[in-house]
Amino acid sequence: MFRHSADLQFHAKPERPDALFASKLQELVGGQFGEMTVMMQYLWQGWNCRVPGKYKDMIMDIGTEEIGHVEMLVTMMARLLEGAPSETQADAAAANPALAAVLGGQNPQHAIVTGGAAMPTNSQGVPWNSGYIVASGNLLADFRHNVAAEAQSRLQTARVYQMTDDPGVKDMLQFNLARDTYHQQQWLFGIEQLIEDGLVESGIEDSLAAEEKDEPSRTFYSFHDGSQAGQGRWAQGSAMIGDREILFAEGAPLDDDINQAPAPDPELFVTYDGSMGAGKPGTAGGVYTQGAESLLSKAKDKLTGE
Amino acid sequence: MFRHSADLQFHAKPERPDALFASKLQELVGGQFGEMTVMMQYLWQGWNCRVPGKYKDMIMDIGTEEIGHVEMLVTMMARLLEGAPSETQADAAAANPALAAVLGGQNPQHAIVTGGAAMPTNSQGVPWNSGYIVASGNLLADFRHNVAAEAQSRLQTARVYQMTDDPGVKDMLQFNLARDTYHQQQWLFGIEQLIEDGLVESGIEDSLAAEEKDEPSRTFYSFHDGSQAGQGRWAQGSAMIGDREILFAEGAPLDDDINQAPAPDPELFVTYDGSMGAGKPGTAGGVYTQGAESLLSKAKDKLTGE
Amino acid sequence: MFRHSADLQFHAKPERPDALFASKLQELVGGQFGEMTVMMQYLWQGWNCRVPGKYKDMIMDIGTEEIGHVEMLVTMMARLLEGAPSETQADAAAANPALAAVLGGQNPQHAIVTGGAAMPTNSQGVPWNSGYIVASGNLLADFRHNVAAEAQSRLQTARVYQMTDDPGVKDMLQFNLARDTYHQQQWLFGIEQLIEDGLVESGIEDSLAAEEKDEPSRTFYSFHDGSQAGQGRWAQGSAMIGDREILFAEGAPLDDDINQAPAPDPELFVTYDGSMGAGKPGTAGGVYTQGAESLLSKAKDKLTGE
Amino acid sequence: MFRHSADLQFHAKPERPDALFASKLQELVGGQFGEMTVMMQYLWQGWNCRVPGKYKDMIMDIGTEEIGHVEMLVTMMARLLEGAPSETQADAAAANPALAAVLGGQNPQHAIVTGGAAMPTNSQGVPWNSGYIVASGNLLADFRHNVAAEAQSRLQTARVYQMTDDPGVKDMLQFNLARDTYHQQQWLFGIEQLIEDGLVESGIEDSLAAEEKDEPSRTFYSFHDGSQAGQGRWAQGSAMIGDREILFAEGAPLDDDINQAPAPDPELFVTYDGSMGAGKPGTAGGVYTQGAESLLSKAKDKLTGE
Amino acid sequence: MFRHSADLQFHAKPERPDALFASKLQELVGGQFGEMTVMMQYLWQGWNCRVPGKYKDMIMDIGTEEIGHVEMLVTMMARLLEGAPSETQADAAAANPALAAVLGGQNPQHAIVTGGAAMPTNSQGVPWNSGYIVASGNLLADFRHNVAAEAQSRLQTARVYQMTDDPGVKDMLQFNLARDTYHQQQWLFGIEQLIEDGLVESGIEDSLAAEEKDEPSRTFYSFHDGSQAGQGRWAQGSAMIGDREILFAEGAPLDDDINQAPAPDPELFVTYDGSMGAGKPGTAGGVYTQGAESLLSKAKDKLTGE
Amino acid sequence: MFRHSADLQFHAKPERPDALFASKLQELVGGQFGEMTVMMQYLWQGWNCRVPGKYKDMIMDIGTEEIGHVEMLVTMMARLLEGAPSETQADAAAANPALAAVLGGQNPQHAIVTGGAAMPTNSQGVPWNSGYIVASGNLLADFRHNVAAEAQSRLQTARVYQMTDDPGVKDMLQFNLARDTYHQQQWLFGIEQLIEDGLVESGIEDSLAAEEKDEPSRTFYSFHDGSQAGQGRWAQGSAMIGDREILFAEGAPLDDDINQAPAPDPELFVTYDGSMGAGKPGTAGGVYTQGAESLLSKAKDKLTGE
Repeated sequence: MFRHSADLQFHAKPERPDALFASKLQELVGGQFGEMTVMMQYLWQGWNCRVPGKYKDMIMDIGTEEIGHVEMLVTMMARLLEGAPSETQADAAAANPALAAVLGGQNPQHAIVTGGAAMPTNSQGVPWNSGYIVASGNLLADFRHNVAAEAQSRLQTARVYQMTDDPGVKDMLQFNLARDTYHQQQWLFGIEQLIEDGLVESGIEDSLAAEEKDEPSRTFYSFHDGSQAGQGRWAQGSAMIGDREILFAEGAPLDDDINQAPAPDPELFVTYDGSMGAGKPGTAGGVYTQGAESLLSKAKDKLTGE
Repeated sequence: MFRHSADLQFHAKPERPDALFASKLQELVGGQFGEMTVMMQYLWQGWNCRVPGKYKDMIMDIGTEEIGHVEMLVTMMARLLEGAPSETQADAAAANPALAAVLGGQNPQHAIVTGGAAMPTNSQGVPWNSGYIVASGNLLADFRHNVAAEAQSRLQTARVYQMTDDPGVKDMLQFNLARDTYHQQQWLFGIEQLIEDGLVESGIEDSLAAEEKDEPSRTFYSFHDGSQAGQGRWAQGSAMIGDREILFAEGAPLDDDINQAPAPDPELFVTYDGSMGAGKPGTAGGVYTQGAESLLSKAKDKLTGE
Repeated sequence: MFRHSADLQFHAKPERPDALFASKLQELVGGQFGEMTVMMQYLWQGWNCRVPGKYKDMIMDIGTEEIGHVEMLVTMMARLLEGAPSETQADAAAANPALAAVLGGQNPQHAIVTGGAAMPTNSQGVPWNSGYIVASGNLLADFRHNVAAEAQSRLQTARVYQMTDDPGVKDMLQFNLARDTYHQQQWLFGIEQLIEDGLVESGIEDSLAAEEKDEPSRTFYSFHDGSQAGQGRWAQGSAMIGDREILFAEGAPLDDDINQAPAPDPELFVTYDGSMGAGKPGTAGGVYTQGAESLLSKAKDKLTGE
Repeated sequence: MFRHSADLQFHAKPERPDALFASKLQELVGGQFGEMTVMMQYLWQGWNCRVPGKYKDMIMDIGTEEIGHVEMLVTMMARLLEGAPSETQADAAAANPALAAVLGGQNPQHAIVTGGAAMPTNSQGVPWNSGYIVASGNLLADFRHNVAAEAQSRLQTARVYQMTDDPGVKDMLQFNLARDTYHQQQWLFGIEQLIEDGLVESGIEDSLAAEEKDEPSRTFYSFHDGSQAGQGRWAQGSAMIGDREILFAEGAPLDDDINQAPAPDPELFVTYDGSMGAGKPGTAGGVYTQGAESLLSKAKDKLTGE
Repeated sequence: MFRHSADLQFHAKPERPDALFASKLQELVGGQFGEMTVMMQYLWQGWNCRVPGKYKDMIMDIGTEEIGHVEMLVTMMARLLEGAPSETQADAAAANPALAAVLGGQNPQHAIVTGGAAMPTNSQGVPWNSGYIVASGNLLADFRHNVAAEAQSRLQTARVYQMTDDPGVKDMLQFNLARDTYHQQQWLFGIEQLIEDGLVESGIEDSLAAEEKDEPSRTFYSFHDGSQAGQGRWAQGSAMIGDREILFAEGAPLDDDINQAPAPDPELFVTYDGSMGAGKPGTAGGVYTQGAESLLSKAKDKLTGE
Repeated sequence: MFRHSADLQFHAKPERPDALFASKLQELVGGQFGEMTVMMQYLWQGWNCRVPGKYKDMIMDIGTEEIGHVEMLVTMMARLLEGAPSETQADAAAANPALAAVLGGQNPQHAIVTGGAAMPTNSQGVPWNSGYIVASGNLLADFRHNVAAEAQSRLQTARVYQMTDDPGVKDMLQFNLARDTYHQQQWLFGIEQLIEDGLVESGIEDSLAAEEKDEPSRTFYSFHDGSQAGQGRWAQGSAMIGDREILFAEGAPLDDDINQAPAPDPELFVTYDGSMGAGKPGTAGGVYTQGAESLLSKAKDKLTGE
């Protein structure tokens, strides 16, 4: 359960409205790495967390904080949009190129849809969607994703920061920059803690490690004549896990298979010249035979066994 | 420019068709962390890379490899779909529960749309879209995203691996697991290399570091009564950057602002009781006045100056 | 079946082209509450209507009218886009801020994709999709949705109306405003008629009313310190249905359950510290046991019964 | 700002896992009218509300409650998915049709993506997106939308309720049904309160009422031979607003305009036979001329005026 | 304007319900090449058609017919869904594998969302969106698209036809197959007519033909060692337009440029080693200088000229 | 497998940056008919091609070429975006309308998301998605789609070509125009080759030709009073396949069925007046009875037969 208070975590007071900047700030609200993304990502990860105590509480704490970050940005947006051009402005624009930029660049939905407020979309008007987030239940994999989200979010905040000289906006963005700096570390410390607590062995997600092929797990393959990629640390030296050396190799085929689909089911009207023999008709024969036998022999076993 | 050969990097030969498994395997083809995602992500990052030499070549090498991974999986899919049920099967299903599972669970588009082949969609049929990827030009932020993609991709591959006992499918997935193990390290080594080459100072993205607020950059705020989050490494000890200590604090407001939007533009028909005074009409007055003055005084300066 | 004539229901003649306004008008064509939405929503509701006669005919009548409304707006758009800037205009813009606003704000797809015509998208270029509409077969629930769509549509039309001073555009929008006024009433009268005809008992959708919990069906819970929400009619007085009083209560938990997911399936590689015991492996054991027994005992019954 | 506690508002304890039902229950989590929709819709409306006091507090209260409803459902989902089939089950299915239904109908992402937990998607796997919600700032229009969302949500809950006989699931859904009953009334009372407080004059959104055409604002047009739609209340009697009578009319054109786009810009390569004269080239001539004149005459006025 | 009658163009009477088949039939309703696509594509092309008379009328005629095709399919769907499983069926499924297939494979939204009717989505539940259609105003390009849509639509109809043995469904699909056969020809004849009427010179869209490079306009480039592509008609013989021969060539670079982005704007925090010199700061200097000069010289000209 | 080299197929060197044009050029990168679409469409068709040799090689050759076309355009975009405005420009815009157009019209994601590079989106910022492409396995249907894609792509390239006067951009686009001219022919020659090789009988996709209805396969139905559509070749003369004449007919119903859905399942709470009798409850009775009988009689046969 959640509770709300009207307080903002940090003030969101622009010195003056700026509808053109507001259309750009949308990227930090509803973009791929905007506040809606981290809010939703952390809440879903927290709900799906199977380790009660410090891990689950930590994730829920930050998820709850991020709802408030959406709130801060949305409040800022409404203030930036105060008095934004909503009426016919032909004459005004003719005499004022700065206004022309605003008229051309403002987001029409800020007037038509919200009546002067933020949209749950990115800076190009694309609705936020949950395809941006993940909550896998695997904390190592999720924390990696969270570090990345905070790094990209901070980078985008820094870029947007350059696009305004409003002291009030800059003040709030300095707070956002700081949180993204801290949150990157929070998730990296989270990985360290997972290792320390013995929940993972290393920072590399390697479930089913015993099953994987050896050489492809430590080889850089190059698919480029004259590639200089072999000069990097990723192509030489010790691997991070196991007592293994990293290899550099040409990207030759490891086997003699080729990209050829089989003869098609004749009932599906796929173009075919017969060169691979007759296609198997879509009767799922194998499943049928196997399944029916299995079912009936089991039924027989049970019936006769009683 | 690219070149192609029919060879697969690794063989993709299932022992027998399995249309039900094929519908699940779609997640590794066209899902959020499927092969299409890493292929597109790395190609776009490579094209956007501003550091010629080993970095750009490395990214293009792996991007090129990943096109081939899509090819491998797509070939595997066509083979898994050979002879998949495409005709009316009412009688057959009545006698065979295993077939019933297939009939219920197979992806209808594998027959109707592709005629027995993979779709560029995830395991629920959602089309792949470029909202899954990012290419920011900032290699640290992008490499963080790439580590995360490989970790999630490997985890999902391991989960799918458990859903089949076909030796041929398992053989190929053992190759995929291995590549994801290596690729996680590749991107982490990439970050180490960026630091070693002096292109970044640490693994924390901190552009405009001098601008950010201090305390929020090193404080864990809790928004939960009795949260145990303070027990983790993320809430105590030295920060990763700077000579700073991490703080743990209650999530109190840092200021006295509240989430209140201003009085609305009367022309936008927003519900309002007048309690905050008259709303500013949408004339973008400030912009107009300032802009026009600026324009005309500059024009005057120029004209009179000549 | 449908028939078409070239006549427009109402004229769509702008006095002059206006490409900048056209980009805003897209919201009324292909936006969440644009004409495509109501057209599709009413057609699908009409097709799904199970009450032959006045209800089905009414819904099909308005659905058919709305196809014509899309047609009107699309015609208007093509006329607004006549002579829109399609060539290089660097010099022109340098001398004309009004043109600069157009060049910055026009929708590039109006030239590149349609060659001077409307797009089936909203004012930000997002394609129309059927996730905007619903046709539930339940007329009360659908009519509620239709009232809402007409109210939002009328509000957006009024906002767009302020953005032009073209008498021809205003003339057509005055027609659209009027239809939205009437259509709101049409759907509200539809609800009255449903009650009068005895197809529903009240305006509240309450299928399975006897099953629902009592207190939560008439209580306003507050999750906010000092909330003034209790002052509204929604938090006091008689309920609309039943002989019940509305209650105001703090949002305390109604039970002692917490948001904890169970121990995970070990085969899915979810992070887990064992604190909740061993996770159940993914064998769907319950289903299996129960199902097999059910199947076989039934089979046995039938066989032995014959 | 928000705070969180681990308590659920109502318990979410299924008697036994049921992966097939879980795939259906997704509709109430991430569907068009699922809990994510009402949570996001009310939070955004609350943030955009310009009437401080009981209205804003009421909307924020319910928005905050709904975050907790997502949490309840997500917890229920994880419990329904406990022990869901994640491994190869060919043999088991062959002997158990009930398991076959589960294997065919379960959502693969519940294993592959979340490791045994809910997804932020609907019952067909479509990601939640913000195109489902609206926050217009106009409380009447928004409350109409909210009534509709609660009515559709309740209907869908009732339908899902029939799909299970698990007493624990039914218990929780009885709570959800009750909330949807109350919330429909809450928003309808909200409209009454708006009228009582004088913030709107009636329940019909009619901004710019003086501008709209009269007859189309009170006429039912029929576009169907033999339509019985005229028998309904919507086509006769007094209108809800104004002192007006409703009319029933054939859907004849109200004017002589037809759906003809003008001659195209020759630079856009649109097919054209010249029958409407030469197309206007895309120079936006009107804007240019008018704008430049306006700009320069203003500049001149200012310069010469000083 | 449009009119409607309740008649279907062709009967849509299945012999018996079949909820599993209904979930597949969705592909022909709301899929990429379903009836919604052709309905919307032709209506939008008709509205955008600039050639009054037989072309515009033909497109509107078929667009109007296709609205009726959606109606036919939607009626068929409601009948196929009659009596579809909506209640708990655990026991029933345990004794009936055919029902198990239905329970696993039916579309949950057919019960939860529509109450027993079609959805405006494809066979995987993806909502229809207008990104499937185009209306370019160029009739040659559009007719090409229409031929393709009808060919794919007919192919998918043929595939779906194999998936049922219901005589009533097959009867209707025989009508659909026939229309798709005719419509492919209709659009191909449309191209012939465009040539005969002199509106295009050939069936190849070649606006700005004089501007294009010569050799790339008639060369097949191969990017594959040992490619046999040179054996096809597309790689030899006369071109379709002009007096030209088709060439076959290796895909070598035609120039010495490489895929290198320039030095980045330092304000955007893109990773960069300085190897390409200093990046240009984001001041759009060129535009500024050029624009201001142009503006002021024009202003001066005008003022001094009067 | 694929290989890469840094060479571009054709140079991509603009004479000067132009951020406003770059936002339009996005349509040719990530739009419905942009280079990403043809790249993905051809790769998927090639992978799904069941005719080894010249057909498969040809499709893979062009698919591989198109990856390089994305690369060319992306390189061009980065160069067009060099020095694009990324900082606050209020003063500059006030004095320079050309800059105002850029500030209003540039794509904010070109700075915020990519740091000065292309996006995988269209000119309105909509992410590329795989719903744009198809790979049906039926080469005739796919080649038709490919002709259409190349025609639309060329048309859009020609339109974009008019929007710049940069000689370097025009030079590259002249190459793109040429390829689209050739590729249209390539696919049309592909259809000729299919006929010559006997893989199809004609250019009309007519799988299951013997099943389709005769008259609807050769009739133009008009749904428009006074339609002139009958004057076109599509409504008269010989059909393209078979020895048949094309007919022109009024769009009358061919049968007496109407668009009426059946009585609804009472458990789904669909509004219903009982006029069509009692709805069938959702027990899928037919399937159950039939299935159970089938299963048990088969089981009995097998058991008693042994």
